[in-house]
Amino acid sequence: MSAQRDQLALLPKWVVPVVPEGEVLLDTAVIVQGERIVDIIPASEVVNRYPNATTKPLSTHALIPGLVNAHGHSPMVLMRGLADDLPLMEWLTKHIWPTEQAFAGEDFVRAGSALAAVEMLTGGTTCFNDNYFFPNITAEVVKASGMRAVLGLPVMNVPTIWAEDEAGYIEKGLQVLEESEPNSRIGWAWAPHAPYTVTDASFERLGALTEEFDFKLHLHLLETADEIEQSLAEHGKHPIDRLVDLGLYNDRLIAAHMTQLTDDQVAQTAEAGVHILHCPAANMKLASGFCRVDDLDQAGANIAIGTDGAASNNRLDMFAEMRLASLIAKGFSLNPVAAPATRSLSMATIQGAKALGLDDGIGSIEVGKQADLVAVDLDVPGTTPVHHVISHLVYVVSRSQVSDVWVAGQACVSDRRVVGLDQESVVSEAIEWGLKMHKKQ
Amino acid sequence: MSAQRDQLALLPKWVVPVVPEGEVLLDTAVIVQGERIVDIIPASEVVNRYPNATTKPLSTHALIPGLVNAHGHSPMVLMRGLADDLPLMEWLTKHIWPTEQAFAGEDFVRAGSALAAVEMLTGGTTCFNDNYFFPNITAEVVKASGMRAVLGLPVMNVPTIWAEDEAGYIEKGLQVLEESEPNSRIGWAWAPHAPYTVTDASFERLGALTEEFDFKLHLHLLETADEIEQSLAEHGKHPIDRLVDLGLYNDRLIAAHMTQLTDDQVAQTAEAGVHILHCPAANMKLASGFCRVDDLDQAGANIAIGTDGAASNNRLDMFAEMRLASLIAKGFSLNPVAAPATRSLSMATIQGAKALGLDDGIGSIEVGKQADLVAVDLDVPGTTPVHHVISHLVYVVSRSQVSDVWVAGQACVSDRRVVGLDQESVVSEAIEWGLKMHKKQ
Repeated sequence: MSAQRDQLALLPKWVVPVVPEGEVLLDTAVIVQGERIVDIIPASEVVNRYPNATTKPLSTHALIPGLVNAHGHSPMVLMRGLADDLPLMEWLTKHIWPTEQAFAGEDFVRAGSALAAVEMLTGGTTCFNDNYFFPNITAEVVKASGMRAVLGLPVMNVPTIWAEDEAGYIEKGLQVLEESEPNSRIGWAWAPHAPYTVTDASFERLGALTEEFDFKLHLHLLETADEIEQSLAEHGKHPIDRLVDLGLYNDRLIAAHMTQLTDDQVAQTAEAGVHILHCPAANMKLASGFCRVDDLDQAGANIAIGTDGAASNNRLDMFAEMRLASLIAKGFSLNPVAAPATRSLSMATIQGAKALGLDDGIGSIEVGKQADLVAVDLDVPGTTPVHHVISHLVYVVSRSQVSDVWVAGQACVSDRRVVGLDQESVVSEAIEWGLKMHKKQ
Repeated sequence: MSAQRDQLALLPKWVVPVVPEGEVLLDTAVIVQGERIVDIIPASEVVNRYPNATTKPLSTHALIPGLVNAHGHSPMVLMRGLADDLPLMEWLTKHIWPTEQAFAGEDFVRAGSALAAVEMLTGGTTCFNDNYFFPNITAEVVKASGMRAVLGLPVMNVPTIWAEDEAGYIEKGLQVLEESEPNSRIGWAWAPHAPYTVTDASFERLGALTEEFDFKLHLHLLETADEIEQSLAEHGKHPIDRLVDLGLYNDRLIAAHMTQLTDDQVAQTAEAGVHILHCPAANMKLASGFCRVDDLDQAGANIAIGTDGAASNNRLDMFAEMRLASLIAKGFSLNPVAAPATRSLSMATIQGAKALGLDDGIGSIEVGKQADLVAVDLDVPGTTPVHHVISHLVYVVSRSQVSDVWVAGQACVSDRRVVGLDQESVVSEAIEWGLKMHKKQ
């Protein structure tokens, strides 16, 4: 094939580039060549300027950047809905942890990551930031699926099948890095679990390792009020103060949840450049408290959106999560102007990319960026009429309206089905895992 | 056709009857004859006991009672996403009211009601409680669609195309009742807009009329904190106290929103038998405040769920609303056990039916009840695996998974499309209305 024949001209009804925020382009074509977006031109000029491009009409569709799921535990999709509506500790100790102990090995992670990849890709998510055991296995699935991920190397002082103690986890992480083959779609992060499961010594070592590898530090932080009490009792200081003292409260830190912030801490977090991985559904479902999205946003903090694991959500659905981010920001702050649709779409794309340090390459539809693109079909009764397409993308669209997805210029979802994985096998294997877990219960 | 040939045997994977709450039946057939559910039997017995029934295999589906949307303004779907992310009064006075003034006549109501019927039916809603101008026109659409509705006869002291003053509204309402032909799927309610737009004299007259006609009184109540201030200033009393004094705070009252309740008012409301029409998305989107669902539920109040109008939601999606009801009840009360999935499903079905006084006929899958039934296909990656089907119905399922809907035994949605209305014409007419509104802006 000649280079010209590799050109793809996407012809959507609306292009929503996300940068600049709020912009909507009509009668516009996006030209993809190889991995990249190479041009954005009036649709009428395609015939003359790219006469050999393959054209893809998307006459009732919006084209948006691939969504970035900024916090999750992808293999936990196999535990989706296993236990709900329970107090946090009962949920964890009687259901989630025993199930993980019984099942969460390599095969579980392979099957779960594959189901999560299918679920996320078909729902318009092209990149996810994960934290789970066997990230090397998840990496294999990500490669096959064609999608993009930043995979956490977990560290905590709780023994699991993955490692015995913090030093063991770090060793396993280094081993994964050593054995992994470089892949342009896969990045890594050090992922200490939470302040209450990681010692100062390990945090210090991880601080050095993030510098050495130029990684992000992916941490659960301030998920609940209890965490603060515990830190005050054990360390004599608030978790944020502890991280500051450890030299970790800076723009390498990508902190999931971040409920419970005081006014001063809102300002401090924005100034430090800490990235917030906001998980609205999981915070509500586990009754953890609210993230002060409107205040953090006004203070200039970078907020990304994540689904968290499917055991506490119970879906890896960034459209549902964007909507919830806007709704709860308004509801909680009692400010109807908080987290407008344009901002939630940014949080779910460019701001997610920024948190992961990938915003030079992804997160928006701009010439030169990677062609991570999602076509959303607005031609369903429930999204009719379309007064403002960005409002619809956030408040009305369901992930079932995603028709096509490209990552790095490759079609990953075509006609609503994944291309790189055998979707039927993935689903039937997940059903088998579900049955196995039932027998154990 | 013989009576026997009219029998329909539905063979879902799961039957979720809702009454009793939490029950899930496997290997079970639901037999429909005429308008009603006539039997619920082991699937293996269908061949012998109903040999001439038409069988409908639903091998990957859950069968649930039709969802009841307990509060809305259906024609406002045409204003879906017209204006968002604005302060309440700017939204109302600069966008919603001027648009209504310019457009909201009979044709608008006909087109909007039809789009709402298509949206609701294809999303599993079989019955809705409405309040808008030209309810006689909405009634025509409801009849054609095959769905069920309780239509409000609006009353307020604001002049509109429908009436000039409160007496005029009441007159119009009486005229609608006079001219309407009885229909078993359509009920009526008196629908005073809100305490701040209705005088004591009109409330008293409506109290007498609800008794006379044996109707419910459908009212916006305590949507915002401002409403309380205004009532204290104008009437010298809290809106609830005013309604108590007017003799209207009782089980005829179906009250939408109900944020801002004190502890005493939670108990008082439950004791009075006032039905709460909870609108979680609209309350969050307009930053109105939170309804104390967990407290009201524990006090024994009957809570139903409504989408409100699409201008403030922006969708008429009872699956999204159930999920949000569970999530926000937990998030707001900081109690992860609040509004479990089983309860949100009840709120969206039998409790909605109870609020509308229809629970003898609809709201659950029980022998003798109307066959208002919804088949939900669980065979999609995002709802795999299924550990607990009710959890999935609330936390994971999207309305796009609704495959078939029956109302009073008649197929209203088949193969994901409405049967009684011309879906394509309805959608294209709605698109036309959208374009007209744009030209005006």
